[in-house]
Amino acid sequence: VGVPVITSARNEKVAAAVRLKKRAFRDEDRRFLVEGAQAVGEAIGARSLERLYHAEDVHPLVVRARESGSELVHVTDDLMQRLTSTVTPQGLVGVSPFLDVGLEALPAAARCVAVLHAVRDPGNAGTVLRSADAAGADGVVFSSESVDVYNPKTVRACAGSVFHLPIVRDVPTAEAVDALRTSGHRILAMDARGSHSLYTTDVSGPVAFVFGNEAHGLPHDLAAAADHRVRIPIHGRAESLNLATAAAVCLYASARAQR
Amino acid sequence: VGVPVITSARNEKVAAAVRLKKRAFRDEDRRFLVEGAQAVGEAIGARSLERLYHAEDVHPLVVRARESGSELVHVTDDLMQRLTSTVTPQGLVGVSPFLDVGLEALPAAARCVAVLHAVRDPGNAGTVLRSADAAGADGVVFSSESVDVYNPKTVRACAGSVFHLPIVRDVPTAEAVDALRTSGHRILAMDARGSHSLYTTDVSGPVAFVFGNEAHGLPHDLAAAADHRVRIPIHGRAESLNLATAAAVCLYASARAQR
Repeated sequence: VGVPVITSARNEKVAAAVRLKKRAFRDEDRRFLVEGAQAVGEAIGARSLERLYHAEDVHPLVVRARESGSELVHVTDDLMQRLTSTVTPQGLVGVSPFLDVGLEALPAAARCVAVLHAVRDPGNAGTVLRSADAAGADGVVFSSESVDVYNPKTVRACAGSVFHLPIVRDVPTAEAVDALRTSGHRILAMDARGSHSLYTTDVSGPVAFVFGNEAHGLPHDLAAAADHRVRIPIHGRAESLNLATAAAVCLYASARAQR
Repeated sequence: VGVPVITSARNEKVAAAVRLKKRAFRDEDRRFLVEGAQAVGEAIGARSLERLYHAEDVHPLVVRARESGSELVHVTDDLMQRLTSTVTPQGLVGVSPFLDVGLEALPAAARCVAVLHAVRDPGNAGTVLRSADAAGADGVVFSSESVDVYNPKTVRACAGSVFHLPIVRDVPTAEAVDALRTSGHRILAMDARGSHSLYTTDVSGPVAFVFGNEAHGLPHDLAAAADHRVRIPIHGRAESLNLATAAAVCLYASARAQR
């Protein structure tokens, strides 16, 4: 729309986005990348889209972004490829300021919170966030040892939910557990060898589910510090559930028990 | 252990495995690849490991495979890289014959079956299989339009469950639905705009959940042919759930209702 197309990777606005692919630079700039049409739309809806890089000139979201006051940066397809982590980029990448809050800012009446300890797969982490949003959970805590909630793959997997519910980031799991206990939450350590079944545990809340690493689960001290160690019953011959599916089962069990 | 290490990609045994990365060749040979230690262990347990390619000479699973009668093929790390779809292969790739059964071979007393219509993401498909196994479902149907259950990424995501429960493959969804209805299953089309809530639907079975494509859901004719169109309630602001997490929530709702 009359604005010159940026063609050089050395352009400072392009460089400012590319560096956000790395966690250290995200932490420095307190900004993250938002890839694809759906997430960009959610960012606009949340009034959180600071800047939009677009490869196509004409796109309804470019119009919406302009109207909502986002800065527009028109780039070539080649440059768009550098800004994204997908093989087939959708031609839109936004920049949003960090959204996370402190533990003390979780809703006082929170009935259900998910705590991710040392979760490493960005797709899993984003899928948990999306499930927590769908199940109406009140917040998700990403411990210091976990993948960054602002990792581009996590943001993509969460399908916009990063803009929907309170997120706490980069706190030690034990600190999050202490704070949640103080605010009246029962702490449930999810553990394949837990003594309590999810089916017979009161999950109507206030409750905090603590999920461990994909391969190693929760360390002993964290599991021991919980009010209960809870297992999802395994009825077939699988050894365990995928972390994100386990979280969905727990969070929906709580959603249902609350109603 | 005295066996010469194969170093050439033109070796016929190596070529026989590499071709199994493509669906057309899998269909021709009726064999598939089994990557990584966990899946290889499950294949041995199921007496389904025909051949094991290994890059390391000494590995407990190599010993187990030999004892159970599998053919061993020792290859270099470079060749192992060609056999796998992972960036960091674990040094073990097996070959197993196809395991799927016909619709008529699903257990007569099946309480809960999952039908995947046009599911395209191999990771999603494998995760559904793993969840179905964990939830004690009686079978999973992969429709003709779906990703291949023997896709290496699907096999990896299912964490061995392909060896645990009956799988039907490559049938039209409508045919699977007809057969399941005839065998006494209530057909539930999962649909974000369904009129029935999962919470108030009797899922104690016999029941068949039909899941649609990740982006497009179920086509109208399939949804209309079901006994009910069922939605998982969305309590927050997410538009929908990831397919694999939605399946886990449904399959566990049925597992719990059965008990």
